[in-house]
Amino acid sequence: MTFELHPNLAKKIFLVDLPLCRVLLEDEKHYTWLFLVPRRPNLSRTIDLSQPDQLQLLQELDFVQKALWDHFRPTQLNVAAIGNKTAQLHIHVICRNETDPAWPHTVWDHPVRSPYDDSSKTAMTDRLKALLSFQSQLSG
Amino acid sequence: MTFELHPNLAKKIFLVDLPLCRVLLEDEKHYTWLFLVPRRPNLSRTIDLSQPDQLQLLQELDFVQKALWDHFRPTQLNVAAIGNKTAQLHIHVICRNETDPAWPHTVWDHPVRSPYDDSSKTAMTDRLKALLSFQSQLSG
Repeated sequence: MTFELHPNLAKKIFLVDLPLCRVLLEDEKHYTWLFLVPRRPNLSRTIDLSQPDQLQLLQELDFVQKALWDHFRPTQLNVAAIGNKTAQLHIHVICRNETDPAWPHTVWDHPVRSPYDDSSKTAMTDRLKALLSFQSQLSG
Repeated sequence: MTFELHPNLAKKIFLVDLPLCRVLLEDEKHYTWLFLVPRRPNLSRTIDLSQPDQLQLLQELDFVQKALWDHFRPTQLNVAAIGNKTAQLHIHVICRNETDPAWPHTVWDHPVRSPYDDSSKTAMTDRLKALLSFQSQLSG
């Protein structure tokens, strides 16, 4: 069986393929909200990954978080594997700010949802693609 | 500076010290809800950990999740580093069930909070201590 994105994840904005994970962006202007989706079939939890893939995921999570932290200087990073509604393993990496509408609560069940306008979406996508492609010396 | 628990975490129920993390239990009967707190000072995010400590955290998260998964057979595991309200790095590992009061939403902002009664708390604490101590061949 080959890797395929769950329809809920296929709707997100594509950013980049790292050696293990596809990186996607949520269309939500209040938070810089990324998803790392390991490109392996039949995963629902990090414990379903092989040991080498777990190590690779760790490296890619560290890379993405450090890039976001250095570039956006958020108040906090929220990192989570939840998967209650979309069972395919995907790890949320979200920049949180004291000024965002959900702070200090979590974003997942917060009612405010605001998509980017077209020009902001293009600008943010380009910015993140550049940021995450710049140093892609991550080993596969 | 030495490791000390944030007052919000010091209130949780102590389970076990793994080589890196102190493992704590939330007093909440609807979810088996654990916290892994790396015993290092001045951490707010996983990216604050050294590379060897990140690898050790990965190993301990894998160990705890597999133990909970095999023992409790939940519907899903929710794993998250949030830290918006309690800045000290702590990773939530939560067994979720389709029958729990928040399902399929996340638990963090769900209004239902129900502490264990005394005998259930003792029973659960003993059960988890045995479960997480049994195979503690985790290298430090």
